[in-house]
Amino acid sequence: MNRTNIDIIKFVAPEIIFGMNAISQIGESALRLGARKLFVVTDQGLMEHSWIKKVLFYLEQAGLEYQVWSEITSNPKDTEVAKGSEQYLASKCDAIMAVGGGSPIDAAKAVATVATNGGRIQDYEGINKITRPLPPMLMVPSTAGSGSEVSQFAIIVDKQRKKKMAIISRSLVPDIAIIDPQLLQTKGARLTAATGVDALSHAIESYVSLAANPLSDVRALEAIRLIAGNLRESVACRTNMQAKSAMSMASLQAGLAFSNAILGATHAMTHQVDGLLDLHHGETNAVLLPHVMEFNLISCADKYRQVAIAMGENVDGLSKQDAAHKAIDAVRRLVRDIGINYGLSNMGFREEYIPELSKNALHDACIITNPRDADAEDLARIFYKAM
Amino acid sequence: MNRTNIDIIKFVAPEIIFGMNAISQIGESALRLGARKLFVVTDQGLMEHSWIKKVLFYLEQAGLEYQVWSEITSNPKDTEVAKGSEQYLASKCDAIMAVGGGSPIDAAKAVATVATNGGRIQDYEGINKITRPLPPMLMVPSTAGSGSEVSQFAIIVDKQRKKKMAIISRSLVPDIAIIDPQLLQTKGARLTAATGVDALSHAIESYVSLAANPLSDVRALEAIRLIAGNLRESVACRTNMQAKSAMSMASLQAGLAFSNAILGATHAMTHQVDGLLDLHHGETNAVLLPHVMEFNLISCADKYRQVAIAMGENVDGLSKQDAAHKAIDAVRRLVRDIGINYGLSNMGFREEYIPELSKNALHDACIITNPRDADAEDLARIFYKAM
Ligand SMILES: [Fe+2]
Ligand SMILES: [Fe+2]
Repeated sequence: MNRTNIDIIKFVAPEIIFGMNAISQIGESALRLGARKLFVVTDQGLMEHSWIKKVLFYLEQAGLEYQVWSEITSNPKDTEVAKGSEQYLASKCDAIMAVGGGSPIDAAKAVATVATNGGRIQDYEGINKITRPLPPMLMVPSTAGSGSEVSQFAIIVDKQRKKKMAIISRSLVPDIAIIDPQLLQTKGARLTAATGVDALSHAIESYVSLAANPLSDVRALEAIRLIAGNLRESVACRTNMQAKSAMSMASLQAGLAFSNAILGATHAMTHQVDGLLDLHHGETNAVLLPHVMEFNLISCADKYRQVAIAMGENVDGLSKQDAAHKAIDAVRRLVRDIGINYGLSNMGFREEYIPELSKNALHDACIITNPRDADAEDLARIFYKAM
Repeated sequence: MNRTNIDIIKFVAPEIIFGMNAISQIGESALRLGARKLFVVTDQGLMEHSWIKKVLFYLEQAGLEYQVWSEITSNPKDTEVAKGSEQYLASKCDAIMAVGGGSPIDAAKAVATVATNGGRIQDYEGINKITRPLPPMLMVPSTAGSGSEVSQFAIIVDKQRKKKMAIISRSLVPDIAIIDPQLLQTKGARLTAATGVDALSHAIESYVSLAANPLSDVRALEAIRLIAGNLRESVACRTNMQAKSAMSMASLQAGLAFSNAILGATHAMTHQVDGLLDLHHGETNAVLLPHVMEFNLISCADKYRQVAIAMGENVDGLSKQDAAHKAIDAVRRLVRDIGINYGLSNMGFREEYIPELSKNALHDACIITNPRDADAEDLARIFYKAM
């Protein structure tokens, strides 16, 4: 993708059902997709909450069969996907539903891909490698961050290469996303903070992306506005439903933006780090994002000025450059306020990783749309600063 | 629909392909929908332009068969839909494409409905009456106004009752919308003005609708901003491609907004007038919109303030009421600047129509989401003012 190719804008999104008690629409939605038996992907954490029982109840009420599969870890692995695909095929299910954070949703997409297109998930790394249609997919997120419930992305760890693969394909856009902010109450402060910064990085990276366009820009800016106004409150209080609801909406809008405008260097770099150290993607983003923003500033100061305004900063009378810097300051302050006040070195990351990870990041699909040209040395410098 | 029902937000949209030369993607898009032979709905006006030949060439190039059907008028009629459905069934086509303004697109949707669901188009008036799946639909608009290429609406004239029927159903959302601003060059100033005000009324009515939500609001506001900044220029010059492109984007964003947030009293009233007098929907809207805005003001002054800002008005230091009035002033000025400086009486509308049309407008689906409660007397007063 280069500036010439993006003269034509493409925008795809699933059908969206959003709101308090939206999960009550799960049965009707699955029926509408023609499902008779659903392969329900979820994580162990969510299995311990009553929400999953409620979800399954709605399926039963609609006369639907299901099989639950929860043998996945956070940062889902290629090996788990292979097992899931076998189980999907053996189960005789005809549709896939995920209930959980970004990990089960990405795992469900990968299972759908391998089960219907064959081979290994590695075969589909990159852009538009999936050729055969996937089974109907219904996604129910329990965090406000990944945006995977609406995106054409799935991120899967290659266990051998110890890196995250970005699989990007129109076929990965789910059919229906059901977003119920009540599910966020199952998550504690640390995960709320991490997923919230993930959503922020989706919004900011897609807004300055080389593939940004008027259809994605309004969604990205609204997400930034909502996150700046509600993430602190959502981290502070598990039952603040107004903040949770705003963060669900922010994550959704950021997801729609980045699914269509793609991302940038922050994600190209975090994909390497998370894959190696099994860290939470949102925390890695939180540490890297302000440094990538500083690097990118000379390519998109006007847009950073808009980011600063969306974050509630006063830029009256400031030069373009100064206004742009306010966006970076605001991101740093937000990240610190929600408790992420450390560098990569505190996360088990060692300087010796930098040369290889910088090189690998250049092969991640997200680097293509970063607004400033970057080579391995540029990325290495950013890694050093983020230590 | 009432304020309780809309706690759950639903948002549906087709896949969108937008940009200069986007029509070059028609063949690939039709193949992707599984089409082998397309029923191509277009109007006589467009048949005279070389664009339709170009469109058909792209189908041929992709190895697709087609049958062209263009026996429709502006404000498409129930009787035309019936004939089109027969022709569709006889043609053995397996997909429907419209190339043209809102009329051929609405006609194509109605033909698809009757051909697959049976009966008459009257059977589907109202909300969600279509039960059986429609054939794949691919829409290529040649005007920037109706938004029908992305909406779940089709508006068809009931010839006997002399009124427009609003058919609203999720099934009417096309599969793919291909929007190429070059096609706007086929239209003269008067049609450009009328369709542009139609888009503005979609944006404003959906923004203040009772079903407005954060997913539709950002699209509506962006549409208002683009229209205020580009409609005059687009009317002024047939070859100003920057203005045409902005108006295409505005119409698209307004279409996505109103398809999901529905409309209000302006459309409930214009549907009656257009049906009776066969007027251009956009001109009727232009005359009625400022008067409906005045009536609605006490229900949504805060939102009108945002409309004023989006239209480039300076509202610094103004009271909420005064800022809201600026939105109405800005709409009046825009409508006048593009040459619509008359009232209903200059359009063949007579006072004696008012009592019946006011009553009929209360049965239009669009009145349900108007932000201020309105009875027949309220609507009659608006009609009188607009004479
Ligand atoms: Fe992310
Ligand atoms: Fe309209």
